[in-house]
Order: sequence, then structure tokens, then C-alpha cells
Amino acid sequence: MALRRDYASQSCPVARSLEVIGERWTLLVVRDAFYGVRRFSDFHAHLGIPKAVLSERLTRLIDNGVMTAVPGTGGKDCYELTARGRTLWPTIWALIAWGNDNFYEPESRRSYRHAECGGTIAADRICDACQAIPEPGDLIVHPPRRRRNTHDDPVSVALRQPHHLLEPLVTRR
Amino acid sequence: MALRRDYASQSCPVARSLEVIGERWTLLVVRDAFYGVRRFSDFHAHLGIPKAVLSERLTRLIDNGVMTAVPGTGGKDCYELTARGRTLWPTIWALIAWGNDNFYEPESRRSYRHAECGGTIAADRICDACQAIPEPGDLIVHPPRRRRNTHDDPVSVALRQPHHLLEPLVTRR
Repeated sequence: MALRRDYASQSCPVARSLEVIGERWTLLVVRDAFYGVRRFSDFHAHLGIPKAVLSERLTRLIDNGVMTAVPGTGGKDCYELTARGRTLWPTIWALIAWGNDNFYEPESRRSYRHAECGGTIAADRICDACQAIPEPGDLIVHPPRRRRNTHDDPVSVALRQPHHLLEPLVTRR
Repeated sequence: MALRRDYASQSCPVARSLEVIGERWTLLVVRDAFYGVRRFSDFHAHLGIPKAVLSERLTRLIDNGVMTAVPGTGGKDCYELTARGRTLWPTIWALIAWGNDNFYEPESRRSYRHAECGGTIAADRICDACQAIPEPGDLIVHPPRRRRNTHDDPVSVALRQPHHLLEPLVTRR
């Protein structure tokens, strides 16, 4: 069955966005980057996809200006969201909110709090305390009250503590 | 290369959402449903994907409570968003806004206006006239000032006129 792998026939911003971020697993790479994951090995351990697929996804995100490679320790590159990439936060948030509303009990949801005032971010991205719409770098993600899984990869373990979005996630290996 | 087709290992609302709407072309089916596309033949003409793929996507959306089939004229089903499906609007909107910001000049963008007050919806979904965040059913989509393509499928032609989102799109065949 021939199914085109791009949306060239669709002159539409939704289709154009999906050409960049619609590939399988790509949005989970972006999600992890908002969590502060930077090392290839951490993305790999957390996502559990083949290294070749992860590498291809990162390359495509870099080619489209969503992520960038920066020198890391030990001569290995790290990966960060660019300014363009950080503007994907409303997309990631919409998927978080829709997934939570439909599939997770409140006690199994991570909460996102406004670093400046401590308020909780509601489904519409508005802080319930100060009514601002904080940028992702002003948010602290808190683990759910009830742990959802027993994954013990370095990223899952690190995210059991509150963490400032976009700040590098310190993992132990 | 083995690449899992689900995200069962990812205990996360982003992954859970993508299990429902992350398949290739699925979000464009949802986008069209917001535009008021209801007939299988209209989805098919507008998306240009094989009928078997479209049928599989619609079935999966119905199975997950995002769309529903209703009796149409001539004994053929029509497809509509459910209440759950309509809550995907912030996701679709985030992709519209990101795609417009990055890939379309202002004159090539559709505009979305608040039916009640005539204000224009800004990137954060807030009406620039009354500051409300309108539901999609309160929005009227206007064609871009500069036409982006010469598609003459029935849906593209119908959307050259302003149209109330979610209201059935009347197409000529």
C-alpha cells in the first residue's frame, strides 16, 4: 500500500508541522528535551528505541532547526532545544493535557508548577495562582503522587524529584 | 529495523495521546473534521491517501472515542468529532500556530475569528478583541489573503469561503 511519507500535497500549517515533528517517536524526543534530557545515552535509555532510529530523529530535528548539538563531556555531543524548538511547548502541553484528561487519574499525573509563584498550571496553560501563561523554562515538573511505573532507567529515576524544565537533567549511570 | 508501533513502555500522557492520534495522517483527518468535513469521499478527495488507510484511521478514531459515525444521505455514514474529539482543538491549534509561525507568511495564513465579537484569535488561542479563549465551535475560519495552492478538490474549494468550524461543510461534486 503506497502511503506517502510527506504531506507535500497538503498546503496547511498542521501538515507542515507534522513533516518536522510527526514522525513516530519524534515528539517523545522533544518531550524528553523539555525535561532536560541532553545525552544520547539518556534519550536512548528512556525511550528504548533503536539507536539508529534515535539518531535519525535527532538529525531531522537538527536539520529543521528544532534542536542543536553542543559539545558535552567526554567528547560526546549533547542535544538541546533551540528557540524554535522551545516554541513547541504548547504542542507538547496540549498532548500532556489531553492524555491526562482522558487516560490518567489525577494522582497518577505529574504536576507542573510556576517557579515564580508556586501556582499549578491548568489545562489551558494558565497558572492558577497568578493567571500568567508561563514559558516552559519557568515551570517545575513534579512527579505524580502515585508512581505510574517501575522503570529504573536514569531519566525515569531522575524525574522522581521535582525538576525545572529545560535545565539539564543530572542522571546517574 | 524493529520499531515498535506503540508506546506501551512510555508511561506518559504524551505517549498515550500519540497512541490514539500519532499515526501518520490521523491528525489531518481530525483537522478536516474541525473544518466540518463529514463524508468519506470528501476526506478522501482532500487528503489524497488510499481509501484503505483513511478507513483504518477513521476506525481507530472511532474505537478510541474521538470520532463517531452517523447516518448520512444515500445510506452512507458521515463522520463527526465526539465531545472527546473536540477537546483535541488545543493540539490542532498548537500545530497550526507553530506551522504558521515557522513556515507561512502572514498573507498566506488562514485567520480564525471569534464568531461572537469578530476578534482574531492569536497564537495563544486568546481572542484579541474580548480576551476570551473561544471553543472551536465559536470560531470562523477565513481563507488566506493570498491563495496558497490551486487544489480544486471539493473541500479546498468550499474552504475558500469563511466557514464556521465544526459546522458541516457543504461540498459540490
